[in-house]
Amino acid sequence: MQRRVAIIGASGYTGVELTRLLAGHPNLELGVASSDRWVGEAIEARVGAPSALRYVSNEDAVAQAASCEVVMLATPAEVSHALVPKLLSAGARVVDLSGAYRLRDAALYPEFYKFEHAHPDLLASSVYGLPELCRESIARAKLIANPGCYATAIQLALAPLAAQLAGRPVVDAMSGVTGAGRKAVEEFSFAEIAGDLRTYRALKHQHRPEIEQQLGCEVTFVPHLLPVQRGILATCHVQLASSARTASMADLAGLYQDRYAREPFVSIAASADHVALHDVVGTNKCRIGCSLSERGELVITSAIDNLVKGAAGQALQNVNLMLGLDERTGLSGLRSFHP
Amino acid sequence: MQRRVAIIGASGYTGVELTRLLAGHPNLELGVASSDRWVGEAIEARVGAPSALRYVSNEDAVAQAASCEVVMLATPAEVSHALVPKLLSAGARVVDLSGAYRLRDAALYPEFYKFEHAHPDLLASSVYGLPELCRESIARAKLIANPGCYATAIQLALAPLAAQLAGRPVVDAMSGVTGAGRKAVEEFSFAEIAGDLRTYRALKHQHRPEIEQQLGCEVTFVPHLLPVQRGILATCHVQLASSARTASMADLAGLYQDRYAREPFVSIAASADHVALHDVVGTNKCRIGCSLSERGELVITSAIDNLVKGAAGQALQNVNLMLGLDERTGLSGLRSFHP
Amino acid sequence: MQRRVAIIGASGYTGVELTRLLAGHPNLELGVASSDRWVGEAIEARVGAPSALRYVSNEDAVAQAASCEVVMLATPAEVSHALVPKLLSAGARVVDLSGAYRLRDAALYPEFYKFEHAHPDLLASSVYGLPELCRESIARAKLIANPGCYATAIQLALAPLAAQLAGRPVVDAMSGVTGAGRKAVEEFSFAEIAGDLRTYRALKHQHRPEIEQQLGCEVTFVPHLLPVQRGILATCHVQLASSARTASMADLAGLYQDRYAREPFVSIAASADHVALHDVVGTNKCRIGCSLSERGELVITSAIDNLVKGAAGQALQNVNLMLGLDERTGLSGLRSFHP
Amino acid sequence: MQRRVAIIGASGYTGVELTRLLAGHPNLELGVASSDRWVGEAIEARVGAPSALRYVSNEDAVAQAASCEVVMLATPAEVSHALVPKLLSAGARVVDLSGAYRLRDAALYPEFYKFEHAHPDLLASSVYGLPELCRESIARAKLIANPGCYATAIQLALAPLAAQLAGRPVVDAMSGVTGAGRKAVEEFSFAEIAGDLRTYRALKHQHRPEIEQQLGCEVTFVPHLLPVQRGILATCHVQLASSARTASMADLAGLYQDRYAREPFVSIAASADHVALHDVVGTNKCRIGCSLSERGELVITSAIDNLVKGAAGQALQNVNLMLGLDERTGLSGLRSFHP
Repeated sequence: MQRRVAIIGASGYTGVELTRLLAGHPNLELGVASSDRWVGEAIEARVGAPSALRYVSNEDAVAQAASCEVVMLATPAEVSHALVPKLLSAGARVVDLSGAYRLRDAALYPEFYKFEHAHPDLLASSVYGLPELCRESIARAKLIANPGCYATAIQLALAPLAAQLAGRPVVDAMSGVTGAGRKAVEEFSFAEIAGDLRTYRALKHQHRPEIEQQLGCEVTFVPHLLPVQRGILATCHVQLASSARTASMADLAGLYQDRYAREPFVSIAASADHVALHDVVGTNKCRIGCSLSERGELVITSAIDNLVKGAAGQALQNVNLMLGLDERTGLSGLRSFHP
Repeated sequence: MQRRVAIIGASGYTGVELTRLLAGHPNLELGVASSDRWVGEAIEARVGAPSALRYVSNEDAVAQAASCEVVMLATPAEVSHALVPKLLSAGARVVDLSGAYRLRDAALYPEFYKFEHAHPDLLASSVYGLPELCRESIARAKLIANPGCYATAIQLALAPLAAQLAGRPVVDAMSGVTGAGRKAVEEFSFAEIAGDLRTYRALKHQHRPEIEQQLGCEVTFVPHLLPVQRGILATCHVQLASSARTASMADLAGLYQDRYAREPFVSIAASADHVALHDVVGTNKCRIGCSLSERGELVITSAIDNLVKGAAGQALQNVNLMLGLDERTGLSGLRSFHP
Repeated sequence: MQRRVAIIGASGYTGVELTRLLAGHPNLELGVASSDRWVGEAIEARVGAPSALRYVSNEDAVAQAASCEVVMLATPAEVSHALVPKLLSAGARVVDLSGAYRLRDAALYPEFYKFEHAHPDLLASSVYGLPELCRESIARAKLIANPGCYATAIQLALAPLAAQLAGRPVVDAMSGVTGAGRKAVEEFSFAEIAGDLRTYRALKHQHRPEIEQQLGCEVTFVPHLLPVQRGILATCHVQLASSARTASMADLAGLYQDRYAREPFVSIAASADHVALHDVVGTNKCRIGCSLSERGELVITSAIDNLVKGAAGQALQNVNLMLGLDERTGLSGLRSFHP
Repeated sequence: MQRRVAIIGASGYTGVELTRLLAGHPNLELGVASSDRWVGEAIEARVGAPSALRYVSNEDAVAQAASCEVVMLATPAEVSHALVPKLLSAGARVVDLSGAYRLRDAALYPEFYKFEHAHPDLLASSVYGLPELCRESIARAKLIANPGCYATAIQLALAPLAAQLAGRPVVDAMSGVTGAGRKAVEEFSFAEIAGDLRTYRALKHQHRPEIEQQLGCEVTFVPHLLPVQRGILATCHVQLASSARTASMADLAGLYQDRYAREPFVSIAASADHVALHDVVGTNKCRIGCSLSERGELVITSAIDNLVKGAAGQALQNVNLMLGLDERTGLSGLRSFHP
C-alpha cells in the first residue's frame, strides 16, 4: 500500500531532492507538492522524477495536507515557524527540514534565526529527528525537527565520545554550495565560487546551538564554503577526559564500531584520512574515521551528502520510522554520484 | 644590472612558477634552468615565459651553477639533500625550496622525509627563509631553507600570538592540488578530485615539525586536499594564556595590524570570514583575519597562493634580500587570478 | 525471478557504473564480477553497491560465465576482441561495451583501433545495440556491440534527418573526462584538466566509422575534452537536401517528436539551447533539441550521460531486450545528479 | 612619461581586468576609474592592483575624461551608445569595449542589441580594433570599437582563409562564464554551472554580425557556456573553394605561419588538437591550429582568454597603437594562469 505524503517548498535544492527520492520509494507516494515559484508546472518536466503531478501553491498545499499522512516542510525557517502550528491543528504529522523547531530554548531564535519564536510549547514537544541518536522518540512523534546538515555530520562524529570529552571540541566543517540553498546572488556565482574557499559565520553559525543542545557540551564550530555542489566534511578535534586518555587507536576504533554496528547508514573507516566526500555523495550514508597521534591528539572526520543524509534522505528515514516502515526503505540502494 | 640566477628542477609546478616570475623580474635574469624531463626544449615553448634559453640536464646545471649568484632548487627533498653540499662547495649561494634543510634536528628526517640526513652541520647553519619572521638572517645566508607552503600560512597566522598561547593551537588547512606537485597518479585525476574533499597525513604531515620548531610550541595540524588548482587556507584555533584572556577583538586586530604594519605582503582582514583564496591566488600576498566569540573562542584564518608566497614567490623574496634588492622587486605587482 | 549476468572488467568507470545499476535492477542479479586489479576485494566496499560478492580474476570470470545468461564486457577493445569468441563458444550471450565488434569492415580496425581483427565472421553477425534505432535485432542477438558514447548521442540526434541530408553533417561534441576511462596519466590530472578545454583526435576519432556505418553517410566529427566528470553534448550542423529545405521549425520539431514519441529514454526540447548536460547526468535519457535560423542554418544538440545512456545504462537496456524484460526495467527511475 | 587614461565601468569583470593590466603597464597611468557600484571605495582594496585612486561615479568620470588621453568604456552597449558621443564631443579619444559601435549597419542593432542606434554617423567613422587585421586604421582613430571576445577568436582563426572559402564556415565556440559578465542570476550560480554545458543564443548571438561584416562572408555560429572561469575555444569548420582544395596540411600550416609571422600575440600550433585554453589563460595570446583529414575536412581551432585578448588586453593593445607606443607594452609579459 502506498502512503501519501506532501512536500511544501518543493523547488529548493532540498525540495527537489525530496521529490526525486520519493519517486524511488516503494511505499510512499507524493500526494501534493507545492512551490509558489513553479505553480502549475509538471513535476516530471522540472525535476525529471517520474510523476503525474503538478506543483500547487503553498497555500493550496496546506489546505490539502490533511489528505496526506505526513507533511514535509522544505521551507525557510520563518515559513516553517508559521506553518507548523496550522498543519498540526489540521491533524497532520509534520517533518520540518528547517531549524524552526530544533532548539528547545526559544530565547536562542532571535540571535541565530533572526525571529522571535511564538511557539515555545511546540519547541518543548518537537522531536529531534536524528535516528541514530534519537530513534525511540521518532516513531510516535507528531512533529519532527529534521537536523541541520552540519549538525548531522558533527553529532554522528562526536556522539560516541560525548561522555568522555574534556573541553570544547573544535570542528572545522566544509560544505558544498547547495547547502546554502538556491540563490540568485553574485557571491554564489560560478565565477566567484570556483577556485575559492573561505569561512562564513565563523563561531556563530545557527547549527551550533542544536549541536550543543543534543551533545550536551559546547562546541567550537567554523563552517567553510567549498567549491563543490554537494557534500559536507567535518573535521573534529577532541580532547578526552583524563580517565579516557590512555585509550588506544584500537580502543577508539572499537568504540565507534560498536556504537554504530547496527546502523545501516553509518560506516567506520580505517582512519580520518579514509573519509571522503566521494564515499557518500548521492547516498544516505555517513562515513566516520578517527586518527590518534602518539601525542594524544585525536581527530575524527565524518562525511555526508548535505542534501541526502543532511536533509532529504534523513527526512525520509524519519518518515519511514513514523509510518512503521523499515527505516532503510527507499534509501539503502541510492547510487553513489562518484564515478 | 641583471643578476644571474639558476633554477634546478624547473619542470615541476613550483619550477614553472619560478621561471615565469623570474621572467617578470626587472633585476634578475635566468642564467640556467634544468629539467631532466624537458632537456633540450625551449623554455618559452614550454611555459610561455619570454626566454631564449633551453632546459639543460640537472647535471649540467650543477656544473654551470657557479656562473650564477644564487641557485634555486625546486627539486624533491632527497635530491636537494644531495645537491646542496655540492653547490655550496662550488661557491654558490642556494635557496632550497624543499624541506631538506628546514629542520634543525636531523633525527626528524627519517620519520617525516623518509631518509637519513647526512649533513647535520648544514642543518645547523641553514637559514629559515620566512622574511616576515626571520628577515635579519636572510641577507647574509649561504643556504636558505625556503619554508613549506602550509608552514608559511600557519606561521604568519600564529606568530603574533605565539608568546601568549595556552595549549596546542589546532589547525585545519586546505590546499589546492598543485601543492602535491605534478603527478601521474589516478588519485589526482580530475575524475577523482573534482567534487571531493578529504584529509591526508592527518596529525603527521611533514610541515608540522618545521612549524613547531619556528613557533616554539606544539601544533595540531590536519591538512585537507581541496578541488582547486591553487591556494591554501589555514583555519587556526587558539586558546590564549590566562594573562591574555581579556583581550578584545579590537586588541587582537590591533596586535595583528601592528605586527604586520610594515610588511608589504601581509594584509589584515576585518574578520576570519573576510579571508579567501580569491584574495591571494596569483600573488605573493598573505591575508590574515581573526574572529573572537563572546565565549572566548579565537579563530585566525590565513590564505596564500601555495605556488607563490608558499613557494616560488617567497624564494624570490629571499633572493631579493640576499642580493640587496628591494624585497618587493618583481613581486609587488603580481596580478590576481581571481576574475 | 532473478536472471544472472556477469561483468568482466568491473573496475573501470563503466564497469563500476554497470555494477551499481545492476544493484538497483529488480530482475537481474550480478552472478560474477571480475577485475584483475581488485581481485578478492568486496564489491560493496569498493563501489558502495549492496552486494555480497567479491571480485574474481578475469580468467576465473570467463570460466564461470556459462552460469550467467548474459556476459557484459567492460574491457578494452583488444581484450574484448579476444574474449568474445571464447565466451560465445562456451554458450554465453555477450554484450560487449568496447568497439571490438561494432564495425562491419574488419579493414578499419588497424587505423581506428590499432589491431588487426581476427574474427570478421563475428563482425558480420554482431548486432549494433542502439535500441532506438535497431530494436528488432537485439532481442535474439548472441553478440551485441554496445555503441560508443559519442556515437549514441550523435546517431540519436541525426537519425531522423538521415534520409534528407545534403553533404556531411558537422559535429562538435564535448565529453566529460570519465569518457576516457580510469587513467593514471598526468594530462588527466585535476591540475591539468580544471579550467581547460581542447579537441583531441579531431577528424579521426574511432567513433566516426561506427556513426557513418549506421547512418549511411559521412560525418565530420571533432571531439572535445571537457572539465566535467560526466556527460556528452553533441552539437550537430546539417544541411538538408533541396527537397527538404522549406521545412519550418514546426516541421522539424514535429519530425523529432514523431520519431521518438514512443521512446522512453528520448525527449525533445524546445530548441537546441534547451538541451544541457544537467538534463541527463545520472540518467539513461537522451535529450535532443533543434534550432533553425531564417537563413536555413539547422543545428541539433543532443545530450547523454556518457556512462549511462552512453555505456552501462544502454548495455542494461540491451540486456532487458535480450531477456524479454521491459526495456525500461531498472533504468526509468534513475535519479538525476543535477542538484 | 606616463600617459593618463580613464576607465568607465570599472567594476565588471572586464573593468577589473583593465584596472589590473593598467597597473602593470609601464607607460600608462590610470587617471580616473568609475563604478557606480563601488563609488568611493579604494581601487587597491577592491581589485588588489597597486593604486592610490578611489572609484568615482560614472557621471563624474565623464566630466573628468578630458584630463585623460584615452577613455576606455567597459560599460553595457546601451550605456556606451549614449556616452560615446558626449566623450567625443568633449575631445576624448575612446576605446569602447561594448558592441555599441562595432556594426556599420545601424539596422542590425534592434535585432542583436535590443536598441535603436541613434548615431549612424559614428558607426561609419568608428574603427574596428582588431590590430592583427586592421592595424593601419587604429593609430589615428578617434573611436575604436574593441571587438567581441568570440569575434576575436573566430576572425583570427578564419581570416587567413577568408578569400578561399566555399560556403559558410561552421563555428562552435565555448566560453568561460566571465564572458557573460558579473551577474547575480541563479542560472550562473556555481550549483547550476558546475558540471553543465549547453548552447545559448544558437545561430543568433550578437557577435555573428560583426564577424560577418569583418570577414565578408556568412558564418554559422553556435556559442556554448563552459564551466570554467576564463577562456574561449573556437572550433571552426571550413570548406575551401575548388581552386584551393588541393592544399596540403603543409600548405595550410605555411599559410598560417606566414600570415601571423610578425604578430607578437598569435602563435600557430602543430594541429587543431594542440590548442588549449591552458595555452592562453591570463595572457594576451591567441593560439591557432589546423587539422586536415584525408577526405578534405578542415578544422581550425583558436583559443584566447576572453577577458584579455578578448577584451581588456586587446583594448590596451589598441591604446598602445593610438598613443604611438610599442603594441606589446604591458602585455607581452603577462603570466599564464595555467599551473
